[in-house]
Amino acid sequence: MYRGSLLHLQALGVKKIYSYTLGKETGVSAEQVRKDFSEYHIKGNQRGGYKVDELVGEMENIFYKHGSQNIIIVGRGNIGSSLANYDNFIQRQINIVATFDIDPSKQHIRSEIPVYTMERMKEIIDRFRVRTAIIAVPGMAAQNVCDRLIEFGIDGIINFAPVILKVPDHIIVNNVNLSDEIESVIYCVSLADSNCPE
Amino acid sequence: MYRGSLLHLQALGVKKIYSYTLGKETGVSAEQVRKDFSEYHIKGNQRGGYKVDELVGEMENIFYKHGSQNIIIVGRGNIGSSLANYDNFIQRQINIVATFDIDPSKQHIRSEIPVYTMERMKEIIDRFRVRTAIIAVPGMAAQNVCDRLIEFGIDGIINFAPVILKVPDHIIVNNVNLSDEIESVIYCVSLADSNCPE
Repeated sequence: MYRGSLLHLQALGVKKIYSYTLGKETGVSAEQVRKDFSEYHIKGNQRGGYKVDELVGEMENIFYKHGSQNIIIVGRGNIGSSLANYDNFIQRQINIVATFDIDPSKQHIRSEIPVYTMERMKEIIDRFRVRTAIIAVPGMAAQNVCDRLIEFGIDGIINFAPVILKVPDHIIVNNVNLSDEIESVIYCVSLADSNCPE
Repeated sequence: MYRGSLLHLQALGVKKIYSYTLGKETGVSAEQVRKDFSEYHIKGNQRGGYKVDELVGEMENIFYKHGSQNIIIVGRGNIGSSLANYDNFIQRQINIVATFDIDPSKQHIRSEIPVYTMERMKEIIDRFRVRTAIIAVPGMAAQNVCDRLIEFGIDGIINFAPVILKVPDHIIVNNVNLSDEIESVIYCVSLADSNCPE
């Protein structure tokens, strides 16, 4: 979140930022900002705050020192396609190298991001040293896809399928359930109060 | 999350469920499940657990007793279109009544969910008593769209634009930043440990 806000501010030409301002942008307290940054040994200047360019640079180091962030998307339906075409990933250095779909006709989709058959998954994962995959297949197919990805060496999964995946303990899974995200707002609105967490 | 899991289990023909099982499905403890349900006066049976059909029924009451959940999507680009075509919303009774786009050519998109020009936003919000809107426009346009939605009576927003929106205190905003969701997994994987929260 900090990085996203900082890239946005940098694009707007902002040069310096205070922990208070960055906290306001990201919805946390100034103390939290300073605490988080200090854990990564990023120090601000009492009077001048943080320099945006320096902060962004330090965050890039934290994010990318461990190597490649090539990722793949399995499922080239609505969600898979919209993620493959999502402009904001480029700015964030999220590099989608390939998508996969069970439907062979999807290989003819005109797009910068190629669509392959499922059979080529292992080959592409190995070639691009992919460690993170997005699952955007229907719920019924998700666990099977997940098992294969893990077998092929994937250890980070962003799961858009509306099911809970069973994975070994060392695998990192982030479930993004779009229905839940929308329903939580509908529910809070229907309660007509603002006690719901953001 | 409970509701999503229960609907899935119901579709699979499961009749009874223990708090332990439901907790495992949703990633929380059995105690947490019982605590959450007891807040809504939903009681299980010590031996037989909860009846799935009854649980689903009670949750529908909680969700929908406050009236309509018609929602609109502003922005019919990649994200907006994939949300408009997302099958899972139907099962969850999330009813997308209309989408809006600044580009008039998008009105000719063939889809069950109509695309209107931005000028018709107030009319549609009033007609369908919409209280919740999804913002799926580019970051630069998001604050302006947000201001107009609030002016037209919207009080719940799911924001897919990669910016932090400024809103009055009583407005509920849920930011769904797809880059953040993916980056958090890339980051955890790159740390090569599993200390990251899910």
